[in-house]
Amino acid sequence: MSDAAAPAGDPASGGAVDVRQLTVAVLGGTGPQGRGLARRFAAGGLRVVIGSRSADRAAEVAADIGAGVSGAVNLAAAETADVVVVAVPWAAHADLLAEVAEAMAGKVVVDCVNPLGFDKQGVYALAVPEGSAAQQAAGLLPESQVVGAFHNVSASLLEDPDVTTFDMDVLVVGDDRAATDLVCALVEVLPGTRGVYAGRLRNAHQVEALTANLISINRRYRVHAGLRVTDVR
Amino acid sequence: MSDAAAPAGDPASGGAVDVRQLTVAVLGGTGPQGRGLARRFAAGGLRVVIGSRSADRAAEVAADIGAGVSGAVNLAAAETADVVVVAVPWAAHADLLAEVAEAMAGKVVVDCVNPLGFDKQGVYALAVPEGSAAQQAAGLLPESQVVGAFHNVSASLLEDPDVTTFDMDVLVVGDDRAATDLVCALVEVLPGTRGVYAGRLRNAHQVEALTANLISINRRYRVHAGLRVTDVR
Repeated sequence: MSDAAAPAGDPASGGAVDVRQLTVAVLGGTGPQGRGLARRFAAGGLRVVIGSRSADRAAEVAADIGAGVSGAVNLAAAETADVVVVAVPWAAHADLLAEVAEAMAGKVVVDCVNPLGFDKQGVYALAVPEGSAAQQAAGLLPESQVVGAFHNVSASLLEDPDVTTFDMDVLVVGDDRAATDLVCALVEVLPGTRGVYAGRLRNAHQVEALTANLISINRRYRVHAGLRVTDVR
Repeated sequence: MSDAAAPAGDPASGGAVDVRQLTVAVLGGTGPQGRGLARRFAAGGLRVVIGSRSADRAAEVAADIGAGVSGAVNLAAAETADVVVVAVPWAAHADLLAEVAEAMAGKVVVDCVNPLGFDKQGVYALAVPEGSAAQQAAGLLPESQVVGAFHNVSASLLEDPDVTTFDMDVLVVGDDRAATDLVCALVEVLPGTRGVYAGRLRNAHQVEALTANLISINRRYRVHAGLRVTDVR
């Protein structure tokens, strides 16, 4: 983790990290989920860099968001950031991470990728040899702290300018306490949300796969379902 | 599904099933989760039969619950019921279901079993060759309608007489609409809960495995966490 991501050390805030001082790169930031997260992080006052395979496309989406967001190819975006959010399609996940691994060293990497398949019967979770997308990331990024988060967040809500608050918690999984604390604080940049620590990285698969259930719920009830964890203050 | 489980056909209730007319067997009903569910179903006015490997132990737990609950060996309990809840330990799951399969034919079977492991680093989800406990059940019970539900419900809350309402929804997965509707109605016997249809049986694994995340949350925050699905009315 870079110095900028170190705990602010303010006892009054319980040692919470001041995430608004961070630069966040969103790789795959031109897709719906990445674009939506970038928009919300920028609205929360963070410096945001959209990463894409295409610098032109990244710049275009960044300009559309405004709020000081910039665009770059994925590698350059990763290099400039304190925290890197990975929101690429599952099919591109392993190749992209292998390509940018060096630029991710020493950083907190937030993996949001859901390995899902679709067929005539709807959506289902794909089997992942490493266990989960997040564990695949951890294997490819041995010098980074990989945290899973934002899997179950509706891209439509993130992108909807009329949505000013979110009725949901975000499950945060990872093996490093400082990194999961940082990501919980990053989650809370989204109005109304809470980051809830939900176990080690080996328990990431089901959080990713649960997105298939939420999509099923959305279809059955015609909603944008989110999750709240009860009894956690 | 037996006649008793057929939709009540009351248009005013949206064709909801009158689950309070049902006899529910809870196999593995002497364990914490089974015992807790049996207690709550009985409190809701259902006829409940506790099933166990030991008829004596079943009778003992039934007497302790009162409310007209009876006890029997698992097979006899399954035979007398309209709906059968499976709450046995994962290690006993396949053997038990093979043993009672015939008695389950034509019935709705509610599988609540969570295949979990525990080690020095805490809890984790076990890999299941069939995909999930619920899919294993479906394979062993081809003449039954298998539905997954109640996975994420805290046994401590179910068993706590001071808990009169539950701040949680129950994710219900299954391939048969009448069966998942019935189980959603059964869920709502527990005060405060809602049954939320959450996809096909092939998406059961992550709902079972998510219990590992909830246990992690409980340990970190010292709570009895539950899930609410937002935006579903």
